[in-house]
Amino acid sequence: MSKKVSGFSKFNSEEKINWLANNYFSDKKKGIAILKQYLNQDQKLQDLHNEFIENTISNFYIPYAIAPNFIINEKAYAIPMAIEESSVVAAASLVAKFWSTRGGFQTKVISTTKVGQIHFMYEDNFEKLTTYFEEIKSQLFKITEPLTQNMRNRGGGIIDIELRNKTIDLDNYYQLHITFETADSMGANFINSCLETIANAFKNEQIKIIMSILSNYVPECLVRAEVTCDIKDFFEKDAEHYAQKFIQAVQIANIEPYRAVTHNKGIMNGIDAVVLATGNDFRAVAAGAHAYASRSGKYKSLTNAKIENGKFYFWIEIPLSLGTVGGLTSLHPLAKLSLEILQQPTAKELMQIIAVAGLAQNFAALKALTTTGIQQGHMKMHLMNILNQLEANVNEKEIIVEKFQGKTISHNAISQALHNLRTSS
Amino acid sequence: MSKKVSGFSKFNSEEKINWLANNYFSDKKKGIAILKQYLNQDQKLQDLHNEFIENTISNFYIPYAIAPNFIINEKAYAIPMAIEESSVVAAASLVAKFWSTRGGFQTKVISTTKVGQIHFMYEDNFEKLTTYFEEIKSQLFKITEPLTQNMRNRGGGIIDIELRNKTIDLDNYYQLHITFETADSMGANFINSCLETIANAFKNEQIKIIMSILSNYVPECLVRAEVTCDIKDFFEKDAEHYAQKFIQAVQIANIEPYRAVTHNKGIMNGIDAVVLATGNDFRAVAAGAHAYASRSGKYKSLTNAKIENGKFYFWIEIPLSLGTVGGLTSLHPLAKLSLEILQQPTAKELMQIIAVAGLAQNFAALKALTTTGIQQGHMKMHLMNILNQLEANVNEKEIIVEKFQGKTISHNAISQALHNLRTSS
Repeated sequence: MSKKVSGFSKFNSEEKINWLANNYFSDKKKGIAILKQYLNQDQKLQDLHNEFIENTISNFYIPYAIAPNFIINEKAYAIPMAIEESSVVAAASLVAKFWSTRGGFQTKVISTTKVGQIHFMYEDNFEKLTTYFEEIKSQLFKITEPLTQNMRNRGGGIIDIELRNKTIDLDNYYQLHITFETADSMGANFINSCLETIANAFKNEQIKIIMSILSNYVPECLVRAEVTCDIKDFFEKDAEHYAQKFIQAVQIANIEPYRAVTHNKGIMNGIDAVVLATGNDFRAVAAGAHAYASRSGKYKSLTNAKIENGKFYFWIEIPLSLGTVGGLTSLHPLAKLSLEILQQPTAKELMQIIAVAGLAQNFAALKALTTTGIQQGHMKMHLMNILNQLEANVNEKEIIVEKFQGKTISHNAISQALHNLRTSS
Repeated sequence: MSKKVSGFSKFNSEEKINWLANNYFSDKKKGIAILKQYLNQDQKLQDLHNEFIENTISNFYIPYAIAPNFIINEKAYAIPMAIEESSVVAAASLVAKFWSTRGGFQTKVISTTKVGQIHFMYEDNFEKLTTYFEEIKSQLFKITEPLTQNMRNRGGGIIDIELRNKTIDLDNYYQLHITFETADSMGANFINSCLETIANAFKNEQIKIIMSILSNYVPECLVRAEVTCDIKDFFEKDAEHYAQKFIQAVQIANIEPYRAVTHNKGIMNGIDAVVLATGNDFRAVAAGAHAYASRSGKYKSLTNAKIENGKFYFWIEIPLSLGTVGGLTSLHPLAKLSLEILQQPTAKELMQIIAVAGLAQNFAALKALTTTGIQQGHMKMHLMNILNQLEANVNEKEIIVEKFQGKTISHNAISQALHNLRTSS
């Protein structure tokens, strides 16, 4: 049996599934049933989802949940999150409530500039290149006018085109470094279309274009979110002690990359969940955020904390390139509904909401880590997952959860306890 | 109307949805219908998905697709991908086919060590601490034995416990830096349980534990994937020219962070799609990968390329901490099916498959960027998305696609063309 296939993309959904079943399923009937069980009954809706990408054969479910009680700049939000990891939404909800009685979250957008680059090789002298660039620059703006017209009407467009000499890093290597404002759209298609049009007009016998592409590094598309309270309100007892410990945990993430990566991973749990739920691109956001965390030459925390004049401050600054129009935001019915739940935010408002989701997640993680430890909260969900895996019924679940309260949970121990329970009854 | 809510997590699914509708939906009936339309008809299956996280109200669909024709170490694979971004699966399929006639992908696991740390403060002298640590070290192993028993049976466990003096970075700050082998599980719960148990036994009057937590930075859980061919087979014409240009594109990503971030983002399109489809944690994988990209002090490409003795080489080295047992891998029916499609890989095998998915994605991006540009491929999907948004029917789609072949696509232009079509007919 050859597992090679030609023209797979031309197969219809049924044929794709059958080919897969014939070649890769151990139990064909069962495998096909699983794929089909996840298809939507409404064929028109299923067709819509099928067309988002290529070779679609089913829908992968990510739990879609709500974290209520967020107060951001005095306004109430319930934040939709799409995430498969337990504890993330519970943590968001708890932290939202905690800060809702302490002034809520304060946020602001610092900047919204995005970047695209035309990378090229040029072997002649730099002065000649500069002259050529200065001569052609206004024309480069002009030829993109049909492309940028709509964006300019919405307050965006090309901000500047800059020639950059990078020959110190790589022989003959230069860039057109182009800055954009893309209003409420993420702008990837817009930026790439502009870049390719510009590159086409800019190239000549001596200028060899290597590639033209937007950058997902957006350190000037930056948002800040903050919480603050009197130290005494930080914790029910020993508030100052725990506030100090919290700050030490942030300091550690600032000097120790092994910790910083996990610290920021927790932040991204919150951020990616809202990015996904609103139809934005979490790979782009994650790449930009982690690269920003390493901008000093050392990979560091994206959040900071301090105590000043008896007050506790905790904040995040993170680059977020997001859209609330275009792309999946208006195509995926649940992404669209997420934006409705968030009260139809502009891209700038969405940046602030998502920064809050990240800060909240980090607050929950640091508070748990510096007090009870992370496992206490995780373990209950972990226990339920193990029980589901072992197909425990409602009654068995209750008995086992009771039995393991405060005890260390391992797959082995649960499996044993369930076995004992089943054989004894 | 107050949007604050108490006891939300205790509401049943229906009550959660109603609260949300009453407080945040502009059209309650329509919003509720959308949420419910995504619920599975099979209540038992829906309950399973609801329990993965907290406050679940629906299922967020990510398209689940197949990229066939991958040859990895002589073995054929069809790779399941869960991703909402168009072109990713198409690119994977094309690249798989391209390399299937050129020897396929060669991969190897370099290392599989994972890390957890106990972060603590200690104000006395280091020698005393060292003596205490040496005395207690064997006991720290011993007290974790009940926890590590299963893992040791599977060839894993705690490799070493090391005392690290970090006072040069932060006053009084030390770590127990602990290395683990977690066999086929990702190991987060296992590592965190071990750490908390060790921290509990290790702490004393002078040793103040700040926190105990696994690290998602896993530079020693590393995998390599590579493709190679004669230069002449690289491209149908001007093969050497295009191979050189391809290598220049990789060099640029190595020296220019604005490019490196986007370059690696494309890699993560492939990696995260398979990570998600197999029930693994893409935030953890992304954090580890991007931090690894910045390990030299400058954020760089995760892939490399060279020409040597008439041959083209292209490879990736990336840290990937994955599981094929435990967590969602065995709970989410589609994640489980993904592992079946991948022929029940061990964690090591899955590392190799996922590294290939990343390398393939980068190959597709660089090949498109250095030849036709990225927009040609993107634009067809972009056009279909716009047409879906404008609710074009099959007939209208055909006419518009034909009309815009080779032309620049903008929302405005499509909308205008569709309007003209509709008013003229």
